[in-house]
Amino acid sequence: MAELSAGSSVVPTGTRGDTALRIAESAMCRDGRVMDLETFHKWFADLGRRIYTRAERVPIDELEGWDSDPVTGNIGHRSGGFFTIEGLDVHIADVAVPDWSQPIINQPEVGILGILVKEFDGVLHCLMQAKVEPGNCDGPQLSPTVQATRSNYRRVHRGRATPYLEYFRDTARHRVIADVRQSEQGSAFHHKRNRNMVVEVTEDVEPLDGFCWLSIGQLHRLLADDDMINMDARTVLACLPVAHTGLADVLRPGADGFRAALVRSCDPDAPGVWSMGDVLSWITDTRSRTDVRIRRVPLKALPGWRRVDGRISHESGRFFDVIGVRVEASGREVSRWCQPMVEPHGMGVVAFLVKRVDGVLHVLVHARVEAGYVDIVELAPTVQCTPANYEVLPGPARPRFLDAVLAADRGQIRYEAVLSEEGGRFYHARNRYLVIEADPGPGAQSGDYRWLTVHQLADLLRHSHYVNVQARSLIACLYSLAAAPAEA
Amino acid sequence: MAELSAGSSVVPTGTRGDTALRIAESAMCRDGRVMDLETFHKWFADLGRRIYTRAERVPIDELEGWDSDPVTGNIGHRSGGFFTIEGLDVHIADVAVPDWSQPIINQPEVGILGILVKEFDGVLHCLMQAKVEPGNCDGPQLSPTVQATRSNYRRVHRGRATPYLEYFRDTARHRVIADVRQSEQGSAFHHKRNRNMVVEVTEDVEPLDGFCWLSIGQLHRLLADDDMINMDARTVLACLPVAHTGLADVLRPGADGFRAALVRSCDPDAPGVWSMGDVLSWITDTRSRTDVRIRRVPLKALPGWRRVDGRISHESGRFFDVIGVRVEASGREVSRWCQPMVEPHGMGVVAFLVKRVDGVLHVLVHARVEAGYVDIVELAPTVQCTPANYEVLPGPARPRFLDAVLAADRGQIRYEAVLSEEGGRFYHARNRYLVIEADPGPGAQSGDYRWLTVHQLADLLRHSHYVNVQARSLIACLYSLAAAPAEA
Repeated sequence: MAELSAGSSVVPTGTRGDTALRIAESAMCRDGRVMDLETFHKWFADLGRRIYTRAERVPIDELEGWDSDPVTGNIGHRSGGFFTIEGLDVHIADVAVPDWSQPIINQPEVGILGILVKEFDGVLHCLMQAKVEPGNCDGPQLSPTVQATRSNYRRVHRGRATPYLEYFRDTARHRVIADVRQSEQGSAFHHKRNRNMVVEVTEDVEPLDGFCWLSIGQLHRLLADDDMINMDARTVLACLPVAHTGLADVLRPGADGFRAALVRSCDPDAPGVWSMGDVLSWITDTRSRTDVRIRRVPLKALPGWRRVDGRISHESGRFFDVIGVRVEASGREVSRWCQPMVEPHGMGVVAFLVKRVDGVLHVLVHARVEAGYVDIVELAPTVQCTPANYEVLPGPARPRFLDAVLAADRGQIRYEAVLSEEGGRFYHARNRYLVIEADPGPGAQSGDYRWLTVHQLADLLRHSHYVNVQARSLIACLYSLAAAPAEA
Repeated sequence: MAELSAGSSVVPTGTRGDTALRIAESAMCRDGRVMDLETFHKWFADLGRRIYTRAERVPIDELEGWDSDPVTGNIGHRSGGFFTIEGLDVHIADVAVPDWSQPIINQPEVGILGILVKEFDGVLHCLMQAKVEPGNCDGPQLSPTVQATRSNYRRVHRGRATPYLEYFRDTARHRVIADVRQSEQGSAFHHKRNRNMVVEVTEDVEPLDGFCWLSIGQLHRLLADDDMINMDARTVLACLPVAHTGLADVLRPGADGFRAALVRSCDPDAPGVWSMGDVLSWITDTRSRTDVRIRRVPLKALPGWRRVDGRISHESGRFFDVIGVRVEASGREVSRWCQPMVEPHGMGVVAFLVKRVDGVLHVLVHARVEAGYVDIVELAPTVQCTPANYEVLPGPARPRFLDAVLAADRGQIRYEAVLSEEGGRFYHARNRYLVIEADPGPGAQSGDYRWLTVHQLADLLRHSHYVNVQARSLIACLYSLAAAPAEA
């Protein structure tokens, strides 16, 4: 953003809308203008043989560079940077499990997740990085152009400079398409936020080794693959401005009723079950009524949690462990380091129920409390849970709509893939992401659930603290269906 | 918000806009349909003779019901309700005064500030309360229908029930026009937010003693008087949805160029110096770059602050004191109580610089850091300070544009009044509020200042944490000029 001199220039309000049409055109470009998907897959496979991380489990007490505070037991890096693992004491009134304690990652720094975009042959392409991370199960995944904590890009570990960072640190010469701080997992992080950015350049940008230009249509196709598009890329893609009244002319859904309803739902003029004022008032009401007391407490002697065998585990054996890993990597800023990670137990289920209302697709969102959120409640998927955890919790804690999701038949499943959570903090954290077209009946909106249009979600995504990271992943997946060809 | 059964109903997106036109019509109704202003003033003067508060200073240690914690020195109510006074340790990098300590009011509860509105003869009227508060200088002021902390309305002090509260606690049968949690003074409160609500009813509502129905036009005229419309009423009025493309037809600014530019600035299609995307990116950037470390610390032994003569004061004698008062009141829920209050030193100056850009009024806002904000930075007036404080601070701390505001001549001053801050926590806190039409030249937008349109501010006001309480007061004052007749 260059500074304008007084009165010299005014910006017409429509410019953002035009960006939405250009994004739609890129979504319709299913095989790119720089590298087709066949070439991409060869390039990606080749890269997967050259870059790797090997993460070896080590006891937390033996993590080089990390210490446990003798009084609190909190785990921190000797530099004071990166993150700490602390304890959290949680009380939420009027829920099935109102009181618990848990370890939490405290990472107050705001990092940058940035995708650089540029037109090739008049079509927007995203500069993506094939990145390996210690927590990922199997080889590289596609990440944003820049994915860096503040400690990273300030080079606390004295590694190499983060490539392309300057485009996001100094945007004056470029066009900012999206720029919003968004939360990450409130069950694992205390107040963590990353700055999600999309910046358009017109100048030449050379892709370094490990980087490639892909159209949004190519990324949408790759989103159908398991463990291909990483969490950080998904959340940035969800923040793209997609809402526009003229989308149907570009996306041409034709006779495909589901796609037509989805495209219509991205039109800001499409009517919703609720007005935006109703939606905001509902969120305000939920946040005002929810009686939450969150205290950061010492990790040492955290009720229900034990430090045995070099890890921190819940006495039930459920939820997650805090483990230590020693990492050896090629293709990253530094090649050897140790760190604690969070290892969840069991694969999660993350699902949107969607349905058409008068030809407009609606998404059933859940106003969800998580202990680490900055502002009490964020909008979450209809279902977001690890089913195995509920075996040790009281019956009323069983998530609503989980059974409907697990029982969905083939024809109802509009999207399904197993996707990884962030591989820098989570070890082998994978969730089954689903978009299911189903109408659970008139009682669905009782309590903390509401049917929203996609343009309402897009509007909320311009601001912080409204849409949680799992919902953002699913919104990116939902967008990937808007330009998809009808199934044969 | 009644729950809708699936698919039974959709809400056209235009409904909020229609509300804006009805608000504009009420703003044009300059003397109401229920009670004209002459009658109002008689009623108000009569009430001022019947209801009163007498606040007598008492040493903090002698406040009945309040104790100082022997270890921390923090001051709290024996019930655990209301609020506490604690210490805050503040570090903000790269500013003129980067480090300080101060007492802070910790009031985590979200209270309700609610105005009930209803049509009389087709014109919206607001149910306002003439309320006396211990911190006010001189008699009652007009407050919202409901102005209640959670402790109040849960009756921690076992007083009378808050009248009209049910309209805001259960909105299912009514129409919610505005509903958003907004911050209060970040220099005095830690994370304080109140829920600003406007709820429309169609059923009969009897005004109790001390309540009256006034049109928005009448409230706008009363905003020109010193100490008449209280802070809580101003912030709720600022949250009214005013933006609409059709405003000029209702407000008819005619040949008055300033009013025409103001009305045009409320039109969502009016071009701004910046796009909304630019504005949001600028706020994100400011929040991401600002390096703030805020710690709650014991009030006891707070560096620079002394507890002498029954009050807590800064060693320079500046800023504010924490004092104790014993209150005797008629016309409130309870008639006698004690409480700590914050007494600022000196009258403040709170001003917007505004200018016309291509016929659209723009407001120069300041992205301001205050220690108590939930999210680091909020948009503040161009100038917001107590000039006397700067006598003890380094020269570079002197606020930008203060001299331009103090030097403005009569013809540039579009609005001026002395208004009180909230009289329940602040003792004799008054600020001179000004709207000044002036162009400080092309350098104005350097640093943390930007020219925004009024519709951009209205858009931000639908969400929490964007516009601070002083700016909201000034926005209410600015709105009051939109329907004003041209000066003779």
